[in-house]
Amino acid sequence: MAVISAHSLHSPFSTTPPLLPLRSFPSPPLSKPPRISCSPSPVMGPQTDDDGGRKMFMEFPYVSAPYRDLMVDLVSTMESRLGPYLLPCTLPPDVQYYHNRTNTAFGTLHIRSGIKPSHIDFVFGSWLHCKLPSGALNITSLSAYLSPSTDAPNFLIELIQSSPTSLVLILDLPPRKDLVLHPDYLQTFYEDTQLDKYRKQLDKIPEVRPYYSSSLYIRCSVSPTAILVCIETEPGRTERMEEIVRDHVSVIAKEVFGVWLDHCACGGREVGETDRARLAKRDLMFKSKSIEIDLGSSLPRLFGEEVATRVSGVIRDVFNI
Amino acid sequence: MAVISAHSLHSPFSTTPPLLPLRSFPSPPLSKPPRISCSPSPVMGPQTDDDGGRKMFMEFPYVSAPYRDLMVDLVSTMESRLGPYLLPCTLPPDVQYYHNRTNTAFGTLHIRSGIKPSHIDFVFGSWLHCKLPSGALNITSLSAYLSPSTDAPNFLIELIQSSPTSLVLILDLPPRKDLVLHPDYLQTFYEDTQLDKYRKQLDKIPEVRPYYSSSLYIRCSVSPTAILVCIETEPGRTERMEEIVRDHVSVIAKEVFGVWLDHCACGGREVGETDRARLAKRDLMFKSKSIEIDLGSSLPRLFGEEVATRVSGVIRDVFNI
Repeated sequence: MAVISAHSLHSPFSTTPPLLPLRSFPSPPLSKPPRISCSPSPVMGPQTDDDGGRKMFMEFPYVSAPYRDLMVDLVSTMESRLGPYLLPCTLPPDVQYYHNRTNTAFGTLHIRSGIKPSHIDFVFGSWLHCKLPSGALNITSLSAYLSPSTDAPNFLIELIQSSPTSLVLILDLPPRKDLVLHPDYLQTFYEDTQLDKYRKQLDKIPEVRPYYSSSLYIRCSVSPTAILVCIETEPGRTERMEEIVRDHVSVIAKEVFGVWLDHCACGGREVGETDRARLAKRDLMFKSKSIEIDLGSSLPRLFGEEVATRVSGVIRDVFNI
Repeated sequence: MAVISAHSLHSPFSTTPPLLPLRSFPSPPLSKPPRISCSPSPVMGPQTDDDGGRKMFMEFPYVSAPYRDLMVDLVSTMESRLGPYLLPCTLPPDVQYYHNRTNTAFGTLHIRSGIKPSHIDFVFGSWLHCKLPSGALNITSLSAYLSPSTDAPNFLIELIQSSPTSLVLILDLPPRKDLVLHPDYLQTFYEDTQLDKYRKQLDKIPEVRPYYSSSLYIRCSVSPTAILVCIETEPGRTERMEEIVRDHVSVIAKEVFGVWLDHCACGGREVGETDRARLAKRDLMFKSKSIEIDLGSSLPRLFGEEVATRVSGVIRDVFNI
């Protein structure tokens, strides 16, 4: 998941505005999830005056331009393609934006649930900034969870910067079925889509090395084409890191996101009732474990118990845990 | 699996002798699998005169001492600990040992089924040697598959040498359940056993790099603590490669095998009827896909259609596919 980094830290975004008031959409049929159009929606983006949360989230104020540009592009594309199927963000203001008592750690959280019975469960964005003795930590993330009406994979991107010359990138379409038991699923979503080529492209860059999450659960929840890398440039070579993010990471992230939009969010196949129950069970376990791993120790450590309890409580509600 | 390498090639062993005639063991109870003792058996190894197949397999004639010593040690330990629960190898002689028409490719295959209703499905060893235009290819492997009476992980080691200074090592306890849905299983077999420390140990050696199988199915069938590495020493530095195999690979492989013997083969928990059916279905899918991936093109290419048909047919029989 993307709430808090897979390792030990956390990345929330911010408030989400009522971009697309529910009443403005035709009622979806109750018996069958609406097929999500693959065309960009003409109705999108912030149109109201009370979109302060989204604005704050979209500013990504503590990261440099290449990171900000990438995240703004991904969120805008998501809003463009999926906006009509998303409810406004209804998080309390002090969860959309939060900070610790000493004002050294700031976080935003931006969650929009899918309009039932669409294939979207919810989309989840966040950014986090912490001043630490060793320097600044910045985590930005965006993820999308599909509902049990389809078995198509989810989407996840997470950028963890522990310094201007060190970046961990997690980019994946986490599978929602056991791939060993379902090779047809592997074929459809990972082989036919040629996702592995993006991993190979990034692997050619000299500063890129594989990254192993300290959590075995996170490691086994990703797909075999997952990009989990640590990128480190020489000390002081901030401009080289930004070049890598702009010319390689961004290009690849947008392509992978495009695959997810076309083949999963928009082209995701529907499943029958029996499979839905199995998917719901697996989805719930994944979300529960992810929260446990992500929020367990890092949120209290960075933000204090009070803030951690407030934020994680809201996330658990959204996740129905 | 270990029949043919995860990528494109194959590694079979050789004939197996009636090491432990079935009649020499007390009949196991029919209703419950016998608990496998964790003590070495006093009855083990080749005792008959017709153990030519095992002898040929155990010679590992085309690899250098560090590789041979490792494989002999692993097979001997397996026979010592699991021998009483294994039937003799009953493969036809021309499958226990086979070669191509031009005598440039040789292979052995050594399979012993578990005595029902023990937890052992079968153990599978092989070596393969091919003279190729680019040099010699040597693949040695040993794997053990448990039966659906337990859900404990299998064991797999595979060493693929495409030159004296290049080695791919696959060492793992492949899980038999969906780890995302079963975090308790992950905890029991991978976290509590601290298997990840072996991967980390090997990762410290400068010549070691991660290895990505070209098969996505193979990638997603391994555990999150799997060791999948490519080791390359400088051209001509054969002695350095042998040092790495002797001082690091062998030590780690024996430790990991010890974990498997203690916690899976000998300490593996039993499962109820419903779970058995699920396990059997997943095991069968894994074996079918592995054979398809391993034998599909490489065996005909290296040994010709006739040999490939004969060997793969026998393997399918053993795997009940």
